[in-house]
Amino acid sequence: MVVKVAINGYGTIGKRVADAVTAQDDMEVVGVTKTRPTIEARLAIAKGFPFYSGKEESIPKFKEAGIKVEGMVGDLLDTADIVVDCTPGKYGVNNFEMYKKHGIKAIYQGGEKHSLTGFSFNALANYREAVGRDYARVVSCNTTGLIRTLYPLMKNYGIDYAYSILVRRAVDPNDSKKGPVNAIEPVLKVPSHHGPDVQSVIPEMNIFTMAVKVPTTLMHTHQNIVKLTHPPEDVAEILKVWDETPRVKFVKGADGITTTAQIMELARDLGRPRSDLNEIAVWEDGAKLHDGVLYYSQAVHQESDVIPENIDAIRAMMEIETDGMKSIMKTNKALGIQ
Amino acid sequence: MVVKVAINGYGTIGKRVADAVTAQDDMEVVGVTKTRPTIEARLAIAKGFPFYSGKEESIPKFKEAGIKVEGMVGDLLDTADIVVDCTPGKYGVNNFEMYKKHGIKAIYQGGEKHSLTGFSFNALANYREAVGRDYARVVSCNTTGLIRTLYPLMKNYGIDYAYSILVRRAVDPNDSKKGPVNAIEPVLKVPSHHGPDVQSVIPEMNIFTMAVKVPTTLMHTHQNIVKLTHPPEDVAEILKVWDETPRVKFVKGADGITTTAQIMELARDLGRPRSDLNEIAVWEDGAKLHDGVLYYSQAVHQESDVIPENIDAIRAMMEIETDGMKSIMKTNKALGIQ
Amino acid sequence: MVVKVAINGYGTIGKRVADAVTAQDDMEVVGVTKTRPTIEARLAIAKGFPFYSGKEESIPKFKEAGIKVEGMVGDLLDTADIVVDCTPGKYGVNNFEMYKKHGIKAIYQGGEKHSLTGFSFNALANYREAVGRDYARVVSCNTTGLIRTLYPLMKNYGIDYAYSILVRRAVDPNDSKKGPVNAIEPVLKVPSHHGPDVQSVIPEMNIFTMAVKVPTTLMHTHQNIVKLTHPPEDVAEILKVWDETPRVKFVKGADGITTTAQIMELARDLGRPRSDLNEIAVWEDGAKLHDGVLYYSQAVHQESDVIPENIDAIRAMMEIETDGMKSIMKTNKALGIQ
Amino acid sequence: MVVKVAINGYGTIGKRVADAVTAQDDMEVVGVTKTRPTIEARLAIAKGFPFYSGKEESIPKFKEAGIKVEGMVGDLLDTADIVVDCTPGKYGVNNFEMYKKHGIKAIYQGGEKHSLTGFSFNALANYREAVGRDYARVVSCNTTGLIRTLYPLMKNYGIDYAYSILVRRAVDPNDSKKGPVNAIEPVLKVPSHHGPDVQSVIPEMNIFTMAVKVPTTLMHTHQNIVKLTHPPEDVAEILKVWDETPRVKFVKGADGITTTAQIMELARDLGRPRSDLNEIAVWEDGAKLHDGVLYYSQAVHQESDVIPENIDAIRAMMEIETDGMKSIMKTNKALGIQ
Repeated sequence: MVVKVAINGYGTIGKRVADAVTAQDDMEVVGVTKTRPTIEARLAIAKGFPFYSGKEESIPKFKEAGIKVEGMVGDLLDTADIVVDCTPGKYGVNNFEMYKKHGIKAIYQGGEKHSLTGFSFNALANYREAVGRDYARVVSCNTTGLIRTLYPLMKNYGIDYAYSILVRRAVDPNDSKKGPVNAIEPVLKVPSHHGPDVQSVIPEMNIFTMAVKVPTTLMHTHQNIVKLTHPPEDVAEILKVWDETPRVKFVKGADGITTTAQIMELARDLGRPRSDLNEIAVWEDGAKLHDGVLYYSQAVHQESDVIPENIDAIRAMMEIETDGMKSIMKTNKALGIQ
Repeated sequence: MVVKVAINGYGTIGKRVADAVTAQDDMEVVGVTKTRPTIEARLAIAKGFPFYSGKEESIPKFKEAGIKVEGMVGDLLDTADIVVDCTPGKYGVNNFEMYKKHGIKAIYQGGEKHSLTGFSFNALANYREAVGRDYARVVSCNTTGLIRTLYPLMKNYGIDYAYSILVRRAVDPNDSKKGPVNAIEPVLKVPSHHGPDVQSVIPEMNIFTMAVKVPTTLMHTHQNIVKLTHPPEDVAEILKVWDETPRVKFVKGADGITTTAQIMELARDLGRPRSDLNEIAVWEDGAKLHDGVLYYSQAVHQESDVIPENIDAIRAMMEIETDGMKSIMKTNKALGIQ
Repeated sequence: MVVKVAINGYGTIGKRVADAVTAQDDMEVVGVTKTRPTIEARLAIAKGFPFYSGKEESIPKFKEAGIKVEGMVGDLLDTADIVVDCTPGKYGVNNFEMYKKHGIKAIYQGGEKHSLTGFSFNALANYREAVGRDYARVVSCNTTGLIRTLYPLMKNYGIDYAYSILVRRAVDPNDSKKGPVNAIEPVLKVPSHHGPDVQSVIPEMNIFTMAVKVPTTLMHTHQNIVKLTHPPEDVAEILKVWDETPRVKFVKGADGITTTAQIMELARDLGRPRSDLNEIAVWEDGAKLHDGVLYYSQAVHQESDVIPENIDAIRAMMEIETDGMKSIMKTNKALGIQ
Repeated sequence: MVVKVAINGYGTIGKRVADAVTAQDDMEVVGVTKTRPTIEARLAIAKGFPFYSGKEESIPKFKEAGIKVEGMVGDLLDTADIVVDCTPGKYGVNNFEMYKKHGIKAIYQGGEKHSLTGFSFNALANYREAVGRDYARVVSCNTTGLIRTLYPLMKNYGIDYAYSILVRRAVDPNDSKKGPVNAIEPVLKVPSHHGPDVQSVIPEMNIFTMAVKVPTTLMHTHQNIVKLTHPPEDVAEILKVWDETPRVKFVKGADGITTTAQIMELARDLGRPRSDLNEIAVWEDGAKLHDGVLYYSQAVHQESDVIPENIDAIRAMMEIETDGMKSIMKTNKALGIQ
C-alpha cells in the first residue's frame, strides 16, 4: 500500500514534508496547496507536485501570475488518504471542519493547540498511541527537541524536575521582515508554552520552561537543568544513552563546533537537503553531572526537526507500521539520518 | 577629606568610573592612564583629567599623535590615595606588585580572579567587610546583577537553590571587530564562572549558572529560577522587597518595554550620562511564583552597573563612611539613580 | 518674543524637538501629544510638558493607564503659534486641514511629500526662502545629510553629477519588531526617493541615488561619488570647505573611528543628550579626489540630524531671525554642537 | 585524459572545488590538505579524498585526533597534474616556490595578488589567454561578480565609466568569531581593491569601486552605476543580453525575492549542494536605464561563485578544451547550473 498524502500549505514545513514523503517507499504526495503566487509555488510545480489553490480568492492571482492550478484544496482532499496541515500557526484550526467533512485523516503541526486533536505526537514517546488515529498534532520544533533528550533520561533515571531555558532564533533564515536587529526579548509569560507542551505528550514530566528571543536566524538552543531520581555514576553513561537514541546527534566544541553556525555548516557539509539537520544536536563536551543534576546544551533546527515526526505520524495513523522504532529507523534511512 | 583617586585604564569602565568619582563631593580624579593614542585619550584630556601613559613604550606614540602626557602611571600612583584598576580583564594582575610597591590601595574589576585580592565586593552584600581594606575586587557586571536581586531574596526568604541562565551580549556597542554576526554560542564550561563568582561574595549561596552568547550589543539578560526556603504567599511581596532594594529598577512589558532595546531607550530618555543604566532592570510583569519557586527575568547593562559599586568600594576602603546603605544612597544621589 | 511651539507626536523625532526647543531662549514648548499610554507618555509628563491626547479614541486608554491629559490636540493648537508635526511618516498629511482650520503655522517632517507644503527646507541651503512661511517640510535625515555636504561642494566647485549609495540602518535602536536579522535588501525602486528629495530643496542638483537596507540600528552611511565642475588641486581644500560648514563633523579611521559604532560611542563620550549626534560625520581619511571626481563616506544619525533644522525652521517661519547663518549658530550653541 | 587535481587547503573554497572537480568527467581529486584536525578533516576523509597534512607541524595533531594522513603536501603534489591553492588569503604566496620546485601547474584564488601569477582569470572574459598557462589566479568573489555582468555590457554597448558600491557580508555563515554585530564599516581605502582587480582581467574597463562592510553573513550586494557608450533604447534589451550570459541568474522582487535571505532560500529550494548559488543574482525588476546610465543591483554568493571558474581554469591550463564557452557549458551542466 502506498499512502496518498495531501500537503495543505507549502511553506517552510510543508515543502520539507513533501520532499520527505517523496523519499519514502510507502507513501506519495498527491498534491500541495498554496495561497500566494510566490516563487515557492513555481518551484512546487517544477518538482512535479500537483498544485492546488488553498483559497477560492487566490485563483485569479495564480492565473495572473501564469501558475496553473489543478483545483481547490477540497478537490485535493478527495484524492488523498491523509492530509498534513502545514498552514501558518493558529490558522489550521479553521480547516478542521473541512477535513471532517471530507472524511480524511489529518496531521497538525505544533502551532495548533493540543485540544484541537486531543492527541499530541512524538515518535519516540508515544508512537503506539497514534496507531489508527484520525487526528494528531506533531508538537513544535522546541517541544520535539526537549522530548528527544528528556524522554530517554526519564526512562532510564527518572526525572524529579527539569528546567529548560530556550534561547530562540528570532526568525527563519528566509524571513527579512521581522526583528529584532539588536535586542534580547525575554518571553514574559512564565512558564513559556513549551513546558505544558511537553506534558501534552508526556503528562508525568515535571518540567518548567522560560524562553528568550535573540537576533539570529540559525537554530534555537536549550539550556537544560535536570534533577535525576536515580542518577548514574558518571555523565558518560548518560552520553551512551543518548548515543543510542535516534535523532540525537553529538557535536563537540573540541572539533570546532562551538556555535549554531558551525552546526549548520556541518549540515551543509553532510549534503543534507536544504542544508537541514533533522536531529537534535547535543554538545558532548558541554554536559555535566553534579550532585545528581544534569546540565546540558542542545540545539534545535527549527525548520526541520519535526519533519521525520510527520512521516512517522503518517505511518502510525495509516497503520502501515505499528512498531514505532521500526518506523523511526525506516524514516531515518530514507532521509539520510544516521 | 577628599580622596585622591587614580584611574589606571581609561576604557569602557575607567572612563565611567572617572566621571562617577567626579560627581561625588568626597573624592576626585587625580589622573587617568591609557596606552594608546585613540580618540578616548583626547577626550580624557578635554575633560580636564591629568593624563598619564600606562606604558613606557606608549610615550613616543602619544608624542607623535600630539597628546601631552603628565608622566608615567607610577608618577600618578604617587599622587593618589587609591587606584581603580580598569585595565583589560586578566591584565590587572600584572599591576599588583607595582601598587604594593607604591603603597597604594587598589580596587580591581571582575575580570581578575578573587584570589588576587582575597576579597570580592558588592555594596549591598558585604560593604562592612570592605571598610579599611587595602585591596578589593568589584565583581563583574553579571555577578553584580545576580547579587542585587538574589541577596534580598536570601535575606527575606532563604534560598534552597538558584539557577541562572545568562544570555550574554556578544560585544559592547562600540566594538566592531568581534562577533558572532548570526549564531548562538553556549558556554560549554559548566557551570559558567558566574555561579562561583557570586559565591566569592556570598559563600553560602547555592547557585549554579550557565551562559549563552548571542549577537547583540545591548545588555545581558538573566533567566532566574530560585527555590525559596520560606516562600511568601504572593509574588507581590517579593516585588515589594525588590522595590525597596537600591539599584533594582522595575520595567514593564505592559508599558512597551519588552526587550533590552526599550530599556536602553529608557536610559536615553532619562538623560543618563552615556545613556547608561546603572540599575538592574527586573521585568515586573515577568516574575512568577509557582510551588515555592520564583521565576524572573532581569537585564544587566554590562557597561555601567558596576560603576556605583566602585564608588562605594572607594568610600569603604578609605573609611570615609562605614555604613553601606549610607554610601549607597550618597552614590546614587550623585549619579541620578532614583 | 518667545514662540509658543506645539509638538504633535511625541516619538523619536517629537521628543527630541521638544528638548531642543526647550534649550532655546526664544521659543518654548506649550504642549505635546501622543496617542498611546506608553512609557514615553509618562516621561513627557515627568519632564513637565503639558500633555494632550492625539486622538479622541485614546482618552479612555490614557485614563485607564492613570495618565492625566490636558485636552485634545485641537486644544493644544489653540495655545500655540506654530506646530511641529512629528506624527508617523505619511500620517501627517491627515492633519493639514486641522492646522489650517486652527490658523496655525506648521512644520512637517521628511516622511511627508514635498507637495503637501510646497516648500522643503534645509537651513544651510534655503533658510531665507522659509522666512515668514506658513508651511514647510524639513527634509528627511538622509536628504539633510546629503545636502549638508553637497551644498558647499556645489557652491564652491559646481557639480556635474552626484551619485550616492545609501546603506540604511534597518530600524531605530528602540525598535525590536522589524528586521531583517540577517539579510541585505536593495531598494528596487531606482532612483531611491532621496535624489528627488534633495532636488525638492536644490532643484539644480544633478543627483541620482540608490539605497540598501542592512541589519543594524546605528546610523546610515552614504557612499558619495561627485563629479566636480571646477575641482580644486587637492582634496585638502575640500576638507577645509567642510570644516567651515556648520553641522559637518570630521571623524578619522586613524583615531580608531572606523565604523558607525565608534561614532555613536563618540556621541556618548561627548555627553550629548540621548547620545545623539546632530552633525553629519564625514570620514576625513576616507575622502579621495581622482580625475575631478570626489569620493567620500559619511554617516548620518537618523534619529537626530534633523532636530536643529526644525529649530531653524521655527525661527525662520516665525520671523525671529532672517539671517540663516545666525540662526544656525544660535541653535548649535544651545544644543552643544561645536 | 582525466586530469589529476590536488587541492591545497580544504576550507570554504577548497571543499567546494573538491566536490566540483569530482562532479566533472575529465578531472579527479587525487588529494586534499589541511593543517588542523577539525571536523572538516574528518568529513574530507569520509568523502574518500586522500588526505595530506599541509604542514610538518600538524602531523602530531592529526595523529592525536586519530586522523590518518597519507603524507605531506609535497607527496600530494608529486601525484597531481595541477594544484588548486585554496589556502587562506595572502598565504598562498608562500607556496609558490614549492609548486615551482615540484614542477606543477597552480591555480590561485583572489586573496593573492595579480603579480604572483601575472595572469588573472575569468572564464567569460579571458579563457583563451589561460590555455596552456602554468599559473593563474581566479579573481575574488566580488571581482568575478562584477565581471560577469559588466563584461557583456562592455562588449555590447561600450562602457564610459562604471561605479560600483559593494555592500559586503561581514563574515561567512560558519564564522562565529568576527563581527561587527551592530555597525556599518565603510572601507576607507578608496578605491576599494575590487576596481583595480577587475582591471587585472579587463585592463580597458574604466571602473571605480567603494566598499562597505555590514553585519550579515549572506551574500554581498553590488549597486552598480554604468554609463554606456552606445546605450540601447530600452532596459529590456540589456536584460536580454544578461539572460544569454552564463552564470547570471535573474531574481524578482515581484516574486517575493527582495533580499539576500530569499535568494539563499531559493538556492536551498533548488537543491544546490551546500545550498550554494554559483550564479550572480541580478534583480530583474531593479534595473533602470536613465539618460544612458544603467543602474542595477546584484548579489554575489561569496562562498561559491568562483567555484565553476576554478574548474574552467583547470580545463584551460591543462588544454583539455580551448573554447571557453564550451568549457563553461560543460562545467555548468555538471554542477546543475541552468
